[in-house]
Amino acid sequence: MSERLKRQIEFILEVDKVKSIFRKTKLFDKSRHENDAEHSWHLGLMAIILLEYSNIPIDALKVLKMVLIHDIVEIDSGDYIVYTEQTAEKELKEKAAAERIFGMLPAEQKAEFISIWKEFEQRSTPEAKFATALDRLEPVMQNYYTEADAWRDNKISADQILAVNERIEMGSMKLWEYAKDLIDECIDKGLIS
Amino acid sequence: MSERLKRQIEFILEVDKVKSIFRKTKLFDKSRHENDAEHSWHLGLMAIILLEYSNIPIDALKVLKMVLIHDIVEIDSGDYIVYTEQTAEKELKEKAAAERIFGMLPAEQKAEFISIWKEFEQRSTPEAKFATALDRLEPVMQNYYTEADAWRDNKISADQILAVNERIEMGSMKLWEYAKDLIDECIDKGLIS
Repeated sequence: MSERLKRQIEFILEVDKVKSIFRKTKLFDKSRHENDAEHSWHLGLMAIILLEYSNIPIDALKVLKMVLIHDIVEIDSGDYIVYTEQTAEKELKEKAAAERIFGMLPAEQKAEFISIWKEFEQRSTPEAKFATALDRLEPVMQNYYTEADAWRDNKISADQILAVNERIEMGSMKLWEYAKDLIDECIDKGLIS
Repeated sequence: MSERLKRQIEFILEVDKVKSIFRKTKLFDKSRHENDAEHSWHLGLMAIILLEYSNIPIDALKVLKMVLIHDIVEIDSGDYIVYTEQTAEKELKEKAAAERIFGMLPAEQKAEFISIWKEFEQRSTPEAKFATALDRLEPVMQNYYTEADAWRDNKISADQILAVNERIEMGSMKLWEYAKDLIDECIDKGLIS
């Protein structure tokens, strides 16, 4: 086996750990918490189906790569709920994680993965804005269908929920309209305040 | 909300069930069986990283769509180990599943999903041959790293394993070379016979 394929295989083995990182949100049937691998798969599927709602035309392949790799750093840094403050410490931890894990790949693949991951984190391009919108939309839907389970468990206020999820609008005005309706309904029902 | 978006959202909710379909193979750390959503995510990542080993240049976006949707029919038909005989009954069940589940989407998205899924099933294009190669490679790796756990549990013989996985070669000669080494090592160790 070539040194190159060996590195790629080692990376493929390493990222299996993403399947054991559990999120704050639950499956729609409330049976258990969702893990990062399932979440990333669901975003991939949502990207294919909902691409037409991007505010501007975007590159589907880039969005798919972005959502499939965006949570790999959590192997080292762990899962934070999106309402966690972005501290310098958390940022450093995630950068070190990207360096170590993507660094297992051959040089040009490492460079591509780091660049795509940074683009996503910085929401600096239309693709990143849309991918982030999906990354926010899925948990809004999960909360809506589980009586705001994760929001209530983590004592997240309606103001926080609106402030953080408003960024969906940067990627898709249409999907933000939908997400806002779901949040508003949770407020009306007194599930969040 | 438009009728179109409503259908798309209902599909997105429905496919959450893919996270509860468990496969015969286990995670690399042997802690539990893998589910179809995690498996599909892993294939997506493998497609991005290993695309260069396709026997001929292929369309990455199509391969990604293919691996992300290929197991959705199992919501209705259930998971079969790949060594199961392809009976007419199983085929009918899967076709009905595709019709029902992809039929939840707007007409042209339904048509696209059915077409991609059939292409994968029939291994009729270079993209489908490569996607199938990945779909075979992951369980070979999982068996190799878990002392042939799924193969032994399901009493699969070395001859069956070689015959079924040989199709990796149609998508990637290089990846078949790697997979065959793993299988041969399992035979040499007496794990399968």
